[in-house]
Amino acid sequence: MKVSVRVPATTANIGPGFDCLGLALPIYNEITVEETVMPGSGIEINVIEDTQTYDLLSVPKDKNNIVYKAIELLYNFVGQSVSDIKITIKTNIPVTRGLGSSASVIVGGLLAANKLLGNPADDAVLLSIASEVEGHPDNVAPAMFGGFCLSSMEDDGSVIYSKISWPEDWKLTVIIPDYELDTQIARSILPENVPREDAIYNVRKCAMLIDAVYTHNSELMKKSLEDKIHQPYRAGLIKGFNELKELTKNKDDILGCVVSGAGPAILVISENNGFDKIKNEVLQIFDDLNVICDIRTLDVENTGSVIL
Amino acid sequence: MKVSVRVPATTANIGPGFDCLGLALPIYNEITVEETVMPGSGIEINVIEDTQTYDLLSVPKDKNNIVYKAIELLYNFVGQSVSDIKITIKTNIPVTRGLGSSASVIVGGLLAANKLLGNPADDAVLLSIASEVEGHPDNVAPAMFGGFCLSSMEDDGSVIYSKISWPEDWKLTVIIPDYELDTQIARSILPENVPREDAIYNVRKCAMLIDAVYTHNSELMKKSLEDKIHQPYRAGLIKGFNELKELTKNKDDILGCVVSGAGPAILVISENNGFDKIKNEVLQIFDDLNVICDIRTLDVENTGSVIL
Repeated sequence: MKVSVRVPATTANIGPGFDCLGLALPIYNEITVEETVMPGSGIEINVIEDTQTYDLLSVPKDKNNIVYKAIELLYNFVGQSVSDIKITIKTNIPVTRGLGSSASVIVGGLLAANKLLGNPADDAVLLSIASEVEGHPDNVAPAMFGGFCLSSMEDDGSVIYSKISWPEDWKLTVIIPDYELDTQIARSILPENVPREDAIYNVRKCAMLIDAVYTHNSELMKKSLEDKIHQPYRAGLIKGFNELKELTKNKDDILGCVVSGAGPAILVISENNGFDKIKNEVLQIFDDLNVICDIRTLDVENTGSVIL
Repeated sequence: MKVSVRVPATTANIGPGFDCLGLALPIYNEITVEETVMPGSGIEINVIEDTQTYDLLSVPKDKNNIVYKAIELLYNFVGQSVSDIKITIKTNIPVTRGLGSSASVIVGGLLAANKLLGNPADDAVLLSIASEVEGHPDNVAPAMFGGFCLSSMEDDGSVIYSKISWPEDWKLTVIIPDYELDTQIARSILPENVPREDAIYNVRKCAMLIDAVYTHNSELMKKSLEDKIHQPYRAGLIKGFNELKELTKNKDDILGCVVSGAGPAILVISENNGFDKIKNEVLQIFDDLNVICDIRTLDVENTGSVIL
C-alpha cells in the first residue's frame, strides 16, 4: 500500500493578516507514504530534490521528522501506533524561504497516511493536527484546500477556516532570493508586546483586506496591504524589502508588496501585468544588493492538495 | 435659512473591531442649524431633551461646543468663517453611554451647515471633518451612512469606509444602564502596549467577523465576537459585563455580547428572538448589581442621516 499526495506551496500573512491569512501557489511538493514490506524495518525517510536551485536543510530522518510527527498524531487519534513506514518527499517548493514548504510536507504526509488508514479522519481533524505540528494554520489551510484562506486556531485547539474567492486578475509575483531565513529566527525577532495603536492598525487593515477581496476592490486592497506588527521588525532580515516597498508605493496596477510568510521571499500583488512594468527596477534593486532572485508571476492555486 | 438633520445612534467596536467597526441604531437625535436673523448676535446653542430618563452632561454653549467646532472646520474648508449661528440639538440618544451621541451631533451639525452653505463639501470631506472632531471614524461612518460600517482614518487624514450588508435577522439588543462613563476615562484605562498574541488574536477575530457578515454565517459570528485589546481592560468599569458575557456563552441563538463603544452600554447580538429567552436572567444580573437598565432590541438602522 502506497499513497502519494501533491500539495501546493503557500504564502502566509499577506501583510496585515499575521498567522491567519494564506494563499496557495502553483508550486508543488509530492509526498508519498507507504507501509514497508518488511515488518520491523522501522522508519525510512527519503528526500528527493526536483530542482538544482535550492539546498535542502538537513531534514531529520528519524522520529523527529515533522512528517513523521504528524503521521504519528494521526495514528494516535485512531488509537494505533506507527510501526514500519516509508516517507518519500519529492520537493519543488524552495525551503526556508517563507513559501510553506514545511506545511506542505506535513499536510501531504497526513493526507497520505489517512488514506492508507482508510480515511478515519475528516478535514477538521487533519487541519487541526497539521496546524498543531506547524504551530499555526495560516499555511496549512491553503495547502490543504487551495485558494485564499482565513484560518484561526481556536482556544480549544480546533481550527476553523474560510476559503474566500480570490479575484482571478490579482496576480501573485513571488521573489525568491538565493539565501535562507530560518522561520524560528524571523519569529524570535518579534517583540512580546506591540503598541496598541499598531495592533489597532493591523486589525482594521486586515478587516479591510477581507472586505477588498469580497468586493474585488483594487483601490481598497492597495490601502489594506499594510502591516505594523511583523514586517517592520523583520525588514532588516529581508534584503530588498524596504526598497521594493518604496518602489511599489503608488505604482499603477501594483496592489501591494508584502513579506511572504516569515520571508525572505517577497510577494507582490498586481493586476493588468503591473509587475512586468516594474520588473527591471526590481531586478536592479536585488542586483545592487548582490542577491540572486528567482521571480515567478503566478495565479492563485485553487485546487489544494490532491491524492494522486 | 434653517436646516434640520436626523442622525441615528451608533454602537462601535463590535468586539474585535476597535476604532473601526460600527452599527447604526434606530434611536435619533435631531440637529438644527440656522443663520441667526440679527447679524452680530453670535453663537447660540440650545439643547432640548426629549426624554426624562437621562441627564445631559453640561454641554459647552460656546466655541468649545463640538458641533460648533465641526461647523467651523467646514466653514474653514470653504474659506469662510462662522459668524452668527444658532444650533439646536433635540436629543433622544442617551449621552455618555457608548451610543455615539457625540458623533451624531457632530454629523448632524456638519450636514446641516453644509446644506446651508449650498453643499460645497462632498461625503468624503464631511466624513473626514467629523472623524477629526470625534477622533476616530467608527461611530461617524454609520451615523452618516447607516448600517454596518468598516472605516479607517488613513495616514494622510482621509477617511475611507465600506458599508457592508448586515443580516436582517441579526438583532441588536442594547442594554443601557442608568450611570454614565466618560469616554476619556474608558480610553485612558487602556495600556499603551498590548501582548503581540492579543493583537494577533484581534486581527483574526475582526477578519472573521467581516467574513461572517458577508457570508451570513452565525456559527462563525459566534466565534468572531471576541476581543482581547480593549474589553478586558474596561470590564471593571462596566457593571455586569463579565456576568453577561458568561451568561451568553454557548447560548442558543445568541451570537455574542460586547461593550457598546467605550461603554457602559452593552450590545447583545442574537437571532430567532434569542435575547428574549435570556431576558429574565439578564434582568437578574443587573438587579443584583443595583443597576437600572433600559433594554431595547432593535433592527440595524440602514438609512443613516437624513436632512429633514
